[in-house]
Amino acid sequence: MSLIVQKYGGTSVGTPERIVEVAGRILRTHQEGSQVVAVLSAMSGVTDNLIKLARQVAPHPAEREVDVLLATGEQTTIALTAMAINGLGGRAVSLTGRQAGIITDGVHTKAKISTITPKRIHTLLDAGHIVIVAGFQGETLEGVITTLGRGGSDLTAIALAASIKADLCQIFTDVDGVYTCDPRIVKSARKIPEISYDEMLEMASLGSKVMQSRSVEFAKKFGVIFEVRSSFNDQPGTIVKEETAGMEKVVIRGVSLDRRQAKVTISGVPDKPGIASRIFNEIAAINVNVDMIVQNVSAAGSTDVSFTTLADELPKIEKHLGPIASEIGAKGFAAQGGIAKLSVVGIGMRSHSGVAAKMFELLGKAGINIQMITTSEIKISVIIDEAQIDEGANIVHTGFGLGSLE
Amino acid sequence: MSLIVQKYGGTSVGTPERIVEVAGRILRTHQEGSQVVAVLSAMSGVTDNLIKLARQVAPHPAEREVDVLLATGEQTTIALTAMAINGLGGRAVSLTGRQAGIITDGVHTKAKISTITPKRIHTLLDAGHIVIVAGFQGETLEGVITTLGRGGSDLTAIALAASIKADLCQIFTDVDGVYTCDPRIVKSARKIPEISYDEMLEMASLGSKVMQSRSVEFAKKFGVIFEVRSSFNDQPGTIVKEETAGMEKVVIRGVSLDRRQAKVTISGVPDKPGIASRIFNEIAAINVNVDMIVQNVSAAGSTDVSFTTLADELPKIEKHLGPIASEIGAKGFAAQGGIAKLSVVGIGMRSHSGVAAKMFELLGKAGINIQMITTSEIKISVIIDEAQIDEGANIVHTGFGLGSLE
Repeated sequence: MSLIVQKYGGTSVGTPERIVEVAGRILRTHQEGSQVVAVLSAMSGVTDNLIKLARQVAPHPAEREVDVLLATGEQTTIALTAMAINGLGGRAVSLTGRQAGIITDGVHTKAKISTITPKRIHTLLDAGHIVIVAGFQGETLEGVITTLGRGGSDLTAIALAASIKADLCQIFTDVDGVYTCDPRIVKSARKIPEISYDEMLEMASLGSKVMQSRSVEFAKKFGVIFEVRSSFNDQPGTIVKEETAGMEKVVIRGVSLDRRQAKVTISGVPDKPGIASRIFNEIAAINVNVDMIVQNVSAAGSTDVSFTTLADELPKIEKHLGPIASEIGAKGFAAQGGIAKLSVVGIGMRSHSGVAAKMFELLGKAGINIQMITTSEIKISVIIDEAQIDEGANIVHTGFGLGSLE
Repeated sequence: MSLIVQKYGGTSVGTPERIVEVAGRILRTHQEGSQVVAVLSAMSGVTDNLIKLARQVAPHPAEREVDVLLATGEQTTIALTAMAINGLGGRAVSLTGRQAGIITDGVHTKAKISTITPKRIHTLLDAGHIVIVAGFQGETLEGVITTLGRGGSDLTAIALAASIKADLCQIFTDVDGVYTCDPRIVKSARKIPEISYDEMLEMASLGSKVMQSRSVEFAKKFGVIFEVRSSFNDQPGTIVKEETAGMEKVVIRGVSLDRRQAKVTISGVPDKPGIASRIFNEIAAINVNVDMIVQNVSAAGSTDVSFTTLADELPKIEKHLGPIASEIGAKGFAAQGGIAKLSVVGIGMRSHSGVAAKMFELLGKAGINIQMITTSEIKISVIIDEAQIDEGANIVHTGFGLGSLE
């Protein structure tokens, strides 16, 4: 008998009707002959409402109590889902994070799972029950309730799957899987049947926010094979797993895009050791998140340093960067929004040469100017004009043959 | 330093604003030099909404899961209240029923407290914290969440007060205390400063639903002195405690009334041993709750048996009592609504003779006909016409001198 962990996100359990649908899906999996552990999020909107409520009683609510409060969201869903399964004739039992044996550190609102003792889950499974576990939550060794922060339910599912040695972990969500590109932008985008952890990580850290990076990293570390699929249909989704030899045959797995980027160039930076670290320490101190960094070869003892960030950060940069630039002896700085990042991701790059050249050629032929470039082992990112990002995505997607089905 | 347990009901914490007020009250008690454990109910309306939600996913939700669901109500309140106290500059920590060491039996939705291990409460109090405990809930020894049923938060407060040997247990509610009669009916009704457990039990089992009987019984059993008072003002309430010599000086502590009663008389019942038990077994089998029972001396081998019940039960009685009556060989039955019960309660009755006679005389003079009478050691109840219940309550209240302040 196979052992499956399923995870359903907030939209999937957003209404009583959807909870009954999810209950039916869980029960069906069980009736088809698998042992099932289902991890559930809070109903969509519930967590936000609880945070609003907290702000009404205290402007800066104590984080220990925020966790006690937020944990009620998932506890509500697991009770309702277990009821619904029982109502459909199945035998389900709900467990809070603690009851499921999930022990975390004491960093409230973003705790890390330290150990899982799945004894109770095994006992219930062996007795023929479906086990419904509250995602996103755990408890410290001292018995204090904690929550795992954004994407915490995915993490619960993957960590449980590792702990109970599940055969498969299914992440049910409101998208069909991971796509070669956003189908709203590239019409010919298609679902990727299989993707490696590393590719998924690059896709996740870019615009394709199907899952938080740390869940994928956890899965990679413990070798948990998982599937991202929709809770609204029965189509297979995308399997995420360790790379196989076959995967390298595909040069590019997907195209990813990030809008609303800004580019900042500090000009005439003295070419001295330690200067880059000073610049970016100062920028970190004003709480600006930096993405790409490019430094050209220096000429005549000074150089230009450019970086990208979110366009939302521009006001902060314009307010604080002047003094920083003059303090380090730079000439000045220029900041500009209206740009976007276009990336191609694929482990096939490692064994295929000329991928970067081909991408630049495709964009160049279409008259799209490349303003900045960075590359990693399995990713190439370029900064282009935001107005050209949709066109650029389509050109690159087609150019690398992602739209075709072979 | 004194140790105080306070309990706040659902209306007292019904909105974020009221939670902040309750937080202020708890903090003030702490600042005045007491250690404080506060037991909280779910915000008013929350429990009903959760039950509605449960019915939407399953017509007959599994009781184990109902408890998991309902327990979120109090967990929400304790988190919010602890946040509010911290926001006001105090140091509060919330504990769920389980975290507070409350172990119950496994009878879901109406569990009984079996033990309390207040070690964690003591540790927190000793460290200078205010401890906020979720009422109404506990956990079995096997780690399954339970709830205590109606009035469960009062019970939590009183059981905790017994367990930690509190100096006082204050039950904050939406009434000022226990009154000599309902002030909406008897204008001169006044708050009773002190009442014995037994009197409180008789008042509670009658119409004065300030508290559930089982909480009072628990307090009596463990000698927990408690005060019923309002969370909306600072007036002292009613102290409930073991009877003292002084208490007996007052003949009658209060007057209580129950409307919407019905009277049923089975006529021509054969005067044979075991017949009463047969009648009331049959009535119990059709789920009718019987209150007073009166059987007259028999004449010519048969007798009449009367009982009272809620008027709501009449349809059931009219449907089922005919066959029952004929089966036991009775002549027939008559059922009638439109009556009410008027009771006087007081431990002073034990040492004062003539209380019943005086009550009957007061009612008789006013032309109020008494249809049935029952008495216990500290209570006399009469059934009268429902239309005359307000008049009767006022006459008895004045006649026994309850309105005066001496």
